[in-house]
Amino acid sequence: MTDLLYLLDLIGVAFFAASGAMMAARLRMDPFGMIVLAALPAIGGGTLRDLALGVRPVFWVDDPTYVLVIVATALTAMLFINHFNRLPERLVLVVDALGLALFCIIGARKALMFEPSYTIAVVMGVITGVAGGMLRDIVCRQIPMILRKEVYATACIAGCSLYVLCIHLGSGERLAMLAGMSTTAAIRLAAIAWRLQLPAFHPKLRT
Amino acid sequence: MTDLLYLLDLIGVAFFAASGAMMAARLRMDPFGMIVLAALPAIGGGTLRDLALGVRPVFWVDDPTYVLVIVATALTAMLFINHFNRLPERLVLVVDALGLALFCIIGARKALMFEPSYTIAVVMGVITGVAGGMLRDIVCRQIPMILRKEVYATACIAGCSLYVLCIHLGSGERLAMLAGMSTTAAIRLAAIAWRLQLPAFHPKLRT
Amino acid sequence: MTDLLYLLDLIGVAFFAASGAMMAARLRMDPFGMIVLAALPAIGGGTLRDLALGVRPVFWVDDPTYVLVIVATALTAMLFINHFNRLPERLVLVVDALGLALFCIIGARKALMFEPSYTIAVVMGVITGVAGGMLRDIVCRQIPMILRKEVYATACIAGCSLYVLCIHLGSGERLAMLAGMSTTAAIRLAAIAWRLQLPAFHPKLRT
Repeated sequence: MTDLLYLLDLIGVAFFAASGAMMAARLRMDPFGMIVLAALPAIGGGTLRDLALGVRPVFWVDDPTYVLVIVATALTAMLFINHFNRLPERLVLVVDALGLALFCIIGARKALMFEPSYTIAVVMGVITGVAGGMLRDIVCRQIPMILRKEVYATACIAGCSLYVLCIHLGSGERLAMLAGMSTTAAIRLAAIAWRLQLPAFHPKLRT
Repeated sequence: MTDLLYLLDLIGVAFFAASGAMMAARLRMDPFGMIVLAALPAIGGGTLRDLALGVRPVFWVDDPTYVLVIVATALTAMLFINHFNRLPERLVLVVDALGLALFCIIGARKALMFEPSYTIAVVMGVITGVAGGMLRDIVCRQIPMILRKEVYATACIAGCSLYVLCIHLGSGERLAMLAGMSTTAAIRLAAIAWRLQLPAFHPKLRT
Repeated sequence: MTDLLYLLDLIGVAFFAASGAMMAARLRMDPFGMIVLAALPAIGGGTLRDLALGVRPVFWVDDPTYVLVIVATALTAMLFINHFNRLPERLVLVVDALGLALFCIIGARKALMFEPSYTIAVVMGVITGVAGGMLRDIVCRQIPMILRKEVYATACIAGCSLYVLCIHLGSGERLAMLAGMSTTAAIRLAAIAWRLQLPAFHPKLRT
């Protein structure tokens, strides 16, 4: 199973790298900018997770395959950028939902290997899933969209919580991961299908 | 004394988390955004301090109580958000000054446990006190106000310097902390009372 | 050679600190803002490198000389700010190119001490050279210029690649560093002299 997880992880990295490279192209960045913006969503969340957990070195330093996948993806994106732009938006969102589900459960699993706390496992799952995209948005000078109105982190929290619950109840690792990933993906896909949003706050402002 | 410090630290975390959640509400973020913006000022500075010092894992991974306090505060803030907004601004600033004094001296103290350098202790005190608020401002796409004209970091530098001086002179830990916190709080409160600001630079610009 | 490298490193830190302090002055920040903006380009890249490599504590915590150089530089910049502004822009760019060459090769060298991967050495060289300036730009709420159109990171990648190639071919450490630094500096200086830019992407946008 570890091999399959590793392969899926690399595919997820390539997908998020491609999404970052497309954002770089929209902002008219140069090739280096495309690589940086590819790297941030692909490995940014996992990097913050490893730093907070005290894992050293961080995973992509230990295994440069991640770096090579990101660079190769960014270079490929440069060649086919106009074709990427013609992909149906719905398809991109669906693949994004699957990648999110994978990343956040992998993050929760890794946290449990280092810290025996379910709370921290859920936090690390969410960080792995969403922090990279937030970093990308911050570098691009945008207030991260997921802080505003997307059912995105919520899907991570639900999936990771179910994952640690399954582990706690003694289910096998495989079943727990499958349950967690399905939950995250299902919530996110439902949000996309029915355009669900969490309510944003509209406080009465003092002026 | 450790127990008292821990309790005060958690209270400080709750206060800064509440201030971050209120900022999230003003920016019309969703519940997840409120939790993220609560977490940044509450534990962001201490996280950077622990990372730079090489403490691993960072303090809130070791003790998930911090995470629970932040989530509980953000959820409470959601319920009472309009009441919070009616708090007198002066009261908020005073509590903020006390929290700042606490955080920066706790940060300087922790640094001295790991590195026998007074310079680093002062730097870590300042980072613990102010970096979390800077991260919150950056995520919200604002140039951090404290870089511009507030007597804020200056109060931390003065308090932490006095703290390490007391330690150096062999005063007890308690006296040193009390002296440092009082100094930081007093300078900050004076700045609030008399609206003091450091002069900003107005260089002659080449155009 | 280690002593010479250390001295050059401190000079590079002072130069980048001065450049950050000048940016702070242009943005009308206060003295604390000048110190923060001096610190980011001076030690930000090396800090991220050390964190990712798992070096602990980060280099400037181990050797507070770096902090003192930054604070001294920022204070000096405050006094002479208007004189700095009259420096010819070309001179500033040339010194910046030399500092960049130094920083990125030092970064690649340090990475090789901890991780036996040439890929990671190049990545760490680039991070050491350019990430600090990116952090400064992000805090100042600008999309980092080097992501857009400067031949800047490219010069780092070329120099660091030549450095690891020399090491791989068994050249001495000195020769490898000299070759790497010369390459980075030469590419960057050529880009300045002939105003070279990497092409930015102009994708056909869907609206």
